[in-house]
Amino acid sequence: MALESLESPLDRRGAGRPRCTKTRDAILDAAYALLRDKGMAGFSIEGVAHRAGSAKTTIYRWWPNKGALAVESFFRAVGPLLPFPHPDAASPKEEVRAQLRGLAEALNGPIGVMLADLIAEGQRDPDTQRALVEGYLQPRRAQLAQVLERGIAAGELRPDIDLGATLDALTGAVAGRALLFGRPLDLAWVDRLADTVYRGILVDSAA
Amino acid sequence: MALESLESPLDRRGAGRPRCTKTRDAILDAAYALLRDKGMAGFSIEGVAHRAGSAKTTIYRWWPNKGALAVESFFRAVGPLLPFPHPDAASPKEEVRAQLRGLAEALNGPIGVMLADLIAEGQRDPDTQRALVEGYLQPRRAQLAQVLERGIAAGELRPDIDLGATLDALTGAVAGRALLFGRPLDLAWVDRLADTVYRGILVDSAA
Repeated sequence: MALESLESPLDRRGAGRPRCTKTRDAILDAAYALLRDKGMAGFSIEGVAHRAGSAKTTIYRWWPNKGALAVESFFRAVGPLLPFPHPDAASPKEEVRAQLRGLAEALNGPIGVMLADLIAEGQRDPDTQRALVEGYLQPRRAQLAQVLERGIAAGELRPDIDLGATLDALTGAVAGRALLFGRPLDLAWVDRLADTVYRGILVDSAA
Repeated sequence: MALESLESPLDRRGAGRPRCTKTRDAILDAAYALLRDKGMAGFSIEGVAHRAGSAKTTIYRWWPNKGALAVESFFRAVGPLLPFPHPDAASPKEEVRAQLRGLAEALNGPIGVMLADLIAEGQRDPDTQRALVEGYLQPRRAQLAQVLERGIAAGELRPDIDLGATLDALTGAVAGRALLFGRPLDLAWVDRLADTVYRGILVDSAA
């Protein structure tokens, strides 16, 4: 108990303490199952505690609120299924296009239903939005920015592009389209979006 | 009663029938007040009926579900405050930029809170999403497409641009950024987004 109470909520390096890891895993499994089955409308710390056979106080020791728990359980379960940028890709241009298509395909499936639900919850609950931004959107954005930077270094992309605005015109537009108009997203449209933005950022289209 | 029951739910031209119009207005006023005060989480046909002093059956005669009622009440109340594209603008390029800034400013205020809430509700309720798409997003998109078409006709924009993908890279990206990362949106960022997309669609940047 003394060791467990010293455990930092964000300390993932505690894998050497099996009992603690097992409890955490059971809670995250229960949280993901609840999110998948009931959506955020039916998601609560109490419900997770019930499914996991844990006390609510145990859950609150690791997660500040239900949004943070839902988001962590989601990415732990589906993270491996989401497209992962390769900053060392041979063609950064094609890598960005592959990322956009992968994002659209993920949004079109059951992952997209849960992700849209988490984003929707984030509109009403700042904790959920913060967990999404810090746990997924910002790290993924930093990886894609590296791909663009490599494209600049390789002479594929203009050196003076605005990385943030470019990423928003690509991935922000894909997410915006899915949230505003619904799914499924048309993969041919994703390619047209990439072509539209590429025309302004590729070196070979420069004036 | 006979006249009222013949009234088409979508017939706005029934202004010659004062009693009916008055009832509709009272329901829409009550719906907007409820949306503004409680958000979609606290929005129900029953709650609107209570506030408006109407029967639920009266409301269902005009609106198929709560999403359609909420969306109509929202745009009736805030529509005049939202930026409205001018297809005959002197410079289509500047008109699109003004629209993007106006959209960002609207999203940054109380209108944005309600709009994000309606979009969030649309993730769980297809009727609400459909009402948003048909009642606002598609008409507004058609108007902005006219601005782009005029830019092509005026020789400002490339004739071969993909209108839909261009609109998504601009307005979809603004909405996506607001929904994913939260508000307020930075107006300087909006300008950088417009510049990034413009570089690919303006005639004077062509290779």
